[in-house]
Amino acid sequence: MVNSISGPARERLLRLMRILEKSGEAPVTSAQVEQMTGWPSHTIRKDISFLGDGGHAVGSSNGYAPAALIPAIKKALGLDRRRRFCVVGLGRLGSAYLNDQSFDFGPSGEEEFELAAGFDTNVNRVEILKSPAPLYPAYKMGEVIRRFSIEMALLCVPPEAAQGAAEKLAAAGIRGIVNFAPVVLKLPPDMAVRNVYVADELRELAICIRSIE
Amino acid sequence: MVNSISGPARERLLRLMRILEKSGEAPVTSAQVEQMTGWPSHTIRKDISFLGDGGHAVGSSNGYAPAALIPAIKKALGLDRRRRFCVVGLGRLGSAYLNDQSFDFGPSGEEEFELAAGFDTNVNRVEILKSPAPLYPAYKMGEVIRRFSIEMALLCVPPEAAQGAAEKLAAAGIRGIVNFAPVVLKLPPDMAVRNVYVADELRELAICIRSIE
Repeated sequence: MVNSISGPARERLLRLMRILEKSGEAPVTSAQVEQMTGWPSHTIRKDISFLGDGGHAVGSSNGYAPAALIPAIKKALGLDRRRRFCVVGLGRLGSAYLNDQSFDFGPSGEEEFELAAGFDTNVNRVEILKSPAPLYPAYKMGEVIRRFSIEMALLCVPPEAAQGAAEKLAAAGIRGIVNFAPVVLKLPPDMAVRNVYVADELRELAICIRSIE
Repeated sequence: MVNSISGPARERLLRLMRILEKSGEAPVTSAQVEQMTGWPSHTIRKDISFLGDGGHAVGSSNGYAPAALIPAIKKALGLDRRRRFCVVGLGRLGSAYLNDQSFDFGPSGEEEFELAAGFDTNVNRVEILKSPAPLYPAYKMGEVIRRFSIEMALLCVPPEAAQGAAEKLAAAGIRGIVNFAPVVLKLPPDMAVRNVYVADELRELAICIRSIE
């Protein structure tokens, strides 16, 4: 189904889901969503119409009920099954994300994402680090990723190692990478990549500051 | 000038600047930009027209010359002067960003952003950690931020400490925060915030994967 929903509509549905999650049990009206996001009510209603029955059941004049709409959005966006991810590169950044508690953010404690493994070329690190998930030397990446059907990776290696590690992840069957290294990865077109460039965040912030001034 | 440029146009100009930076010295045509971004050529030309003289000077049938257009975009977006930032919270994540080499990304090595200080409530950490910038105990935040005119902060404290630390940063005169804690900060309307939620990156990635499938 997700293929029939446009990129911008997917982004809006994801953001709407976050708003609903933050609302707790209270219904959220399209007027409130409009106020928070700037999207016209008819756009919000149109996005929700993409959800099919799940959407129709929850839209009413009293607003959208989080308990009904969140699962409908998750289903439409393919977020309704748990996906496994790994952390590659266990320096400061990687080991921070190994122990991040922010992944468990579904209602009633259900996890959308499961940290399944961590990898580093430094065998000492792999042996010494504390981690809720098993850690492996990097040469076992292919084997472990396939065995546990790991789909996604947080790439936390130094910039000069990022392209090589990304290629190994692609060869091992990883489907998507969140790249924290400040480089542009060249990858096969069927791999999804999200870049987190802190320098770009600072730029965006500087632009926001300037526009507030 | 930046106030007269719309939010979406600012985002496009920023992305165009990244494309130009990656191009090195080679000119980039609007057709190439269209291919990479999906934006129609006339949108790109219109965005560049916002740059005023700087834009007119660089648009030609041979494409946009990075050496001329990058400074014009920087000026229009207010990225043409160096801004100071600090890191707040020096656990694994914060200490990773203390030693991040990705901030120096201007042409010819000029730095857009200067890491001016790090702060932590743990005085031991402040004394022991290696850092290219001076580190201070958290109670000195207000004094140091004012003394060095620090404008931005990377907020790397645990989730339960984030709101309190953000309020202290606001009181100290910080203008913008990149928030890495998985919480929604409540801040005065004149503060700019960018949130880096790794769980949301995984969600976006999962949606991308699904749409490629």
